[in-house]
Amino acid sequence: MKKFINSIDTMLDESLNGFSKAHADIIELNSYPHFIKRKQPSPGKVALISGGGSGHEPLHAGFVGLGMLDAACPGQIFTSPTPDQMLAAAQTVNNGAGILFIVKNYAGDVMNFEIAAEMLDIPNATVLVNDDVSLPKNHSIGRRGVAGTSIVEKIVGAAAEGGADLATCKALGDRVNSATASMGVALSSCIVPALGKPTFNLNENEIEMGVGIHGEHGQKTMAFTSAADIVEHLAGIINDELKPQKSQSALLHVNGFGATPLMELYLVYELASAYWQKQGIIIARSLIGNYTTSLDMAGCSITLTILDGEMLHLWDAPVHTASLRWGC
Amino acid sequence: MKKFINSIDTMLDESLNGFSKAHADIIELNSYPHFIKRKQPSPGKVALISGGGSGHEPLHAGFVGLGMLDAACPGQIFTSPTPDQMLAAAQTVNNGAGILFIVKNYAGDVMNFEIAAEMLDIPNATVLVNDDVSLPKNHSIGRRGVAGTSIVEKIVGAAAEGGADLATCKALGDRVNSATASMGVALSSCIVPALGKPTFNLNENEIEMGVGIHGEHGQKTMAFTSAADIVEHLAGIINDELKPQKSQSALLHVNGFGATPLMELYLVYELASAYWQKQGIIIARSLIGNYTTSLDMAGCSITLTILDGEMLHLWDAPVHTASLRWGC
Repeated sequence: MKKFINSIDTMLDESLNGFSKAHADIIELNSYPHFIKRKQPSPGKVALISGGGSGHEPLHAGFVGLGMLDAACPGQIFTSPTPDQMLAAAQTVNNGAGILFIVKNYAGDVMNFEIAAEMLDIPNATVLVNDDVSLPKNHSIGRRGVAGTSIVEKIVGAAAEGGADLATCKALGDRVNSATASMGVALSSCIVPALGKPTFNLNENEIEMGVGIHGEHGQKTMAFTSAADIVEHLAGIINDELKPQKSQSALLHVNGFGATPLMELYLVYELASAYWQKQGIIIARSLIGNYTTSLDMAGCSITLTILDGEMLHLWDAPVHTASLRWGC
Repeated sequence: MKKFINSIDTMLDESLNGFSKAHADIIELNSYPHFIKRKQPSPGKVALISGGGSGHEPLHAGFVGLGMLDAACPGQIFTSPTPDQMLAAAQTVNNGAGILFIVKNYAGDVMNFEIAAEMLDIPNATVLVNDDVSLPKNHSIGRRGVAGTSIVEKIVGAAAEGGADLATCKALGDRVNSATASMGVALSSCIVPALGKPTFNLNENEIEMGVGIHGEHGQKTMAFTSAADIVEHLAGIINDELKPQKSQSALLHVNGFGATPLMELYLVYELASAYWQKQGIIIARSLIGNYTTSLDMAGCSITLTILDGEMLHLWDAPVHTASLRWGC
């Protein structure tokens, strides 16, 4: 395993310290317990808090700032943050209008955010993101939250910034989640530093279809094939789930898992946008790049969100974070 | 070789088509010959044109737009663009104030940009970027242009946007180049699609110090070591070159080569910023991420630019491109 690392124990701290220095105009790091908070609070605004295991950067810390999250709680790599992080973050960034937790559907995250929510003496609600359609709807542990999470965070973040109350933010988050479906494919495994070897093995002629963002096995291991075939497979399953109607607008997000070049991600975008345009869907907005990563995994996911007018407007609203920035 | 690809022959076109659709609000693709141009021309402004082999995305196409480049000419992967691309781009984006070519110092790029400059019937000048200090100053083919190129493009782009004339832009570009030094390290090779195998081989315990952005061998192959040792080595050579003085301001750019997670890049930033802060250098600005890549190579480079007041002001000026955006 070759990585830029001094020791497994200090890796997260060193990385967070670098992040907080690089973006000191936008965010601040609270060291014990760990959370990243927005530097400029916004009195009277619903505070949005997300978090999860590290290794998915820029998710979530890269999305803290105006128009998106108020705080992010990073766990160790691929490990849930703890309730004390969430509690401390909530008490710190509370603006008097309540807390909205945005949680990816993984057992550890869900449990710890639930504990924090119960202990918290501030009105709060939770949006559970479960956009990964590689698993069936009735899967025993439910569907995973993956790259659609950043879409939920951006759209609800804009609503909160605009003054929406807690119930409105919660309902909007659920609505964006329902309008969003994602599916990913891995060309390689990632290497978790503490393990020092690939999480799973793929032969030179194999890909993992429907992979999760921690390298969990997906729908099936398939033979490597053309980008056209891969995109057709991913888009087909997303489409069967969302069933977008002709002339509906959508946001198309092609997300790299960390080790796939931008050149290939744009190629995937070209194929995916052609898939939906052929069906009369309007690709009104797009996001292409490494946003919800899985350390050094090669691969990508496709996310489609069917946009109504309000969601489109909120997507376009100003955002000023380390990793998404426009309109200010 | 597993990549998102349909065929080697169509890969670049498909990727550029995706890029141009995703960013149709900012840029337009000219198909034959290939160049990306800024959508909204700016009459009376010096036009900045860069280009080079593909595989370094977002450099250069991702930097076309307000406050940065007017056009980018993409060659095939790791292959110089041709003079007809540069000529066509120059004739198209000429705003009446002349053309500034920004060229990375590689034999093919230099030759083809020179041919285009000679054939062009519009006043023009060239800034040659050669920021890679892994090679000695008197190296036979000269030092390579690497991640510092985007710093030159941003700062000169802001000056041109503000109305600086051709001679001023050329002099500023040379000044930024002289104030900039970069050095990179590879943890793995990249795989060029047309070759289908790694460009060079590194053992599990080796790293390539001073690597170029096409996977050219660098200063030396070294034993893999801690991030602290690697950063000390890179920063030391950069520092010996630039000799920044106490209390000088600098921009610190940690650039990923494509397959290195953001988490590690921030860790490298933490170490590099500490290195210079210890010496009394003020890290006034930073840029961390994958900006000048080498396909799927794992590794990173460190770039330091000593900033004067004018350069700092121009760095902060609004920019609106696919991959750098602030202030608008």
